[in-house]
Amino acid sequence: MDEVKIFSPATVANVSCAFDILGFALEEVGDEMIFQKIPQKGVVIEMAGNSDLSTVPEENVAGVVALAMLKKVQPSFGVKMIIKKGIKPGSGIGSSAASASGAAFGVNKILGDVFSMKELVEFSMLGEALASGVRHADNTAPALYGGFTLVRSVDPLDVVTIPSPKNLFVSILHPQIEVKTLYARKILKKSVLLKDAVKQWGNIAGLISGLFKEDYALIGRSLQDIIVEPIRSILIPLFPEVKKAAVEAGALGSGISGSGPSMFALSEGKETAVRVAEAMKQVYAESGIDYEIHVSGINAEGVKVI
Amino acid sequence: MDEVKIFSPATVANVSCAFDILGFALEEVGDEMIFQKIPQKGVVIEMAGNSDLSTVPEENVAGVVALAMLKKVQPSFGVKMIIKKGIKPGSGIGSSAASASGAAFGVNKILGDVFSMKELVEFSMLGEALASGVRHADNTAPALYGGFTLVRSVDPLDVVTIPSPKNLFVSILHPQIEVKTLYARKILKKSVLLKDAVKQWGNIAGLISGLFKEDYALIGRSLQDIIVEPIRSILIPLFPEVKKAAVEAGALGSGISGSGPSMFALSEGKETAVRVAEAMKQVYAESGIDYEIHVSGINAEGVKVI
Repeated sequence: MDEVKIFSPATVANVSCAFDILGFALEEVGDEMIFQKIPQKGVVIEMAGNSDLSTVPEENVAGVVALAMLKKVQPSFGVKMIIKKGIKPGSGIGSSAASASGAAFGVNKILGDVFSMKELVEFSMLGEALASGVRHADNTAPALYGGFTLVRSVDPLDVVTIPSPKNLFVSILHPQIEVKTLYARKILKKSVLLKDAVKQWGNIAGLISGLFKEDYALIGRSLQDIIVEPIRSILIPLFPEVKKAAVEAGALGSGISGSGPSMFALSEGKETAVRVAEAMKQVYAESGIDYEIHVSGINAEGVKVI
Repeated sequence: MDEVKIFSPATVANVSCAFDILGFALEEVGDEMIFQKIPQKGVVIEMAGNSDLSTVPEENVAGVVALAMLKKVQPSFGVKMIIKKGIKPGSGIGSSAASASGAAFGVNKILGDVFSMKELVEFSMLGEALASGVRHADNTAPALYGGFTLVRSVDPLDVVTIPSPKNLFVSILHPQIEVKTLYARKILKKSVLLKDAVKQWGNIAGLISGLFKEDYALIGRSLQDIIVEPIRSILIPLFPEVKKAAVEAGALGSGISGSGPSMFALSEGKETAVRVAEAMKQVYAESGIDYEIHVSGINAEGVKVI
């Protein structure tokens, strides 16, 4: 393939109780990327639109992924990537993951689909390592596979796809403030009480069961994070108020998207999700802090050619 | 109903990574109990066969459950229970839970099915509290519901049934030594590293997904407990040897049943489970410690009238 244009979705990682192991992909929000085979070897990056991300491949999330793939295959040509960010960096909805998994997917197309999906997840983690210092796949795996994706283990990589109930929708409020992933990780306590861990894994097991059973009420009851959210939510202005508003407007549950600052709420039905988004928005509208709002279905496909 | 005879199954709780939240019921091992309506109010207990369990209702696991149910309903009659233990107390395969859930189920039959399944689980926990000092349902819920049962939360009680893959079998080795549940709980560390907790809940999510997907390999990969097993296994002679023998003989995975001393191994197919049981047995046969061995399918029904 000489040229391909793709859509790489935004993702919500952690999903409340399932810290560091679960994520899901969005339908309506994501990046667009064009990949072109070029005669000179190596990687060329062009940022479309307004972006201050580096175009030096070694300093760019998509760039390091592409470089590693080319290094492995050693083709006689190179790849140019034109990246149009639809997700703001530092938003907490997988901006770096969309670039990293988009690059893995797109470069693989140009190379003639030589890598498996699992290998693409492995490559995508190089981008995440550059972005946050941690090799993790809880955003890139759902971006690549779509739907809800469990990363049971990173070493060795074990990705499990989880079905997504048809009528599940997400509302996201993205406050226009920056929360560094690195810092959001640093403030976490190194140890937790066993009794809290047991509660948490009861909720994780409940959430996974709820997704398989399409039991919306069980999903709602399970969306409780007593370990990470109480600490990280301090970094997010008006978190308790937004959460309360979302649940009162009918959301199944609500939490921090990734390491924040975005907040997500899951709802049964699009109408409810729109109403929930309105309620979340209302809290911020009164605060004077800038924000963006998204309502989306769960993306069942992951990265795709457009 | 004036008289009913029931079978109440043995259960494996904790299931490796899923400490305190998951259990499953056995097909081949359990207690038999007869319930009779009697003219005088209150509870009468008779132990069939060789047993040194108390027949004073207030000191008997089945007795306290029956007393609480009669207290709630205030019938004009009483209940006599004839209990034939098929499960040795202190075995780690839910001896007290079989009595407690059997009593809840049987007394409910005599009372005319006035209580819901969830209420029966609530009553059964009174028996567990008497036996171990802790109100828990990870044995009694699977004994009542059958199959794999998640107890997402005890307060409020939230029980979730999980499908059991058709071809899943369990091998159990019960060393004839006593491990007190109370002590097995006391030696656990009060806190755990967050990174270990994350690994554990990745495995729990993998195990639940494997059960829903009938993915035996995923079930096997997920049967890892890095938090409780390393501590409790010290109380069980030859634990690492038995585990190694089970896995080498083809088991998907292996762990401690409940708080021990029984060890369980899950296998795909009955033939493999029999071979695994042989391998586990071999380790103990050479040790001189007395043991019992069981091979069983997963009980899909739970307590039942026979």
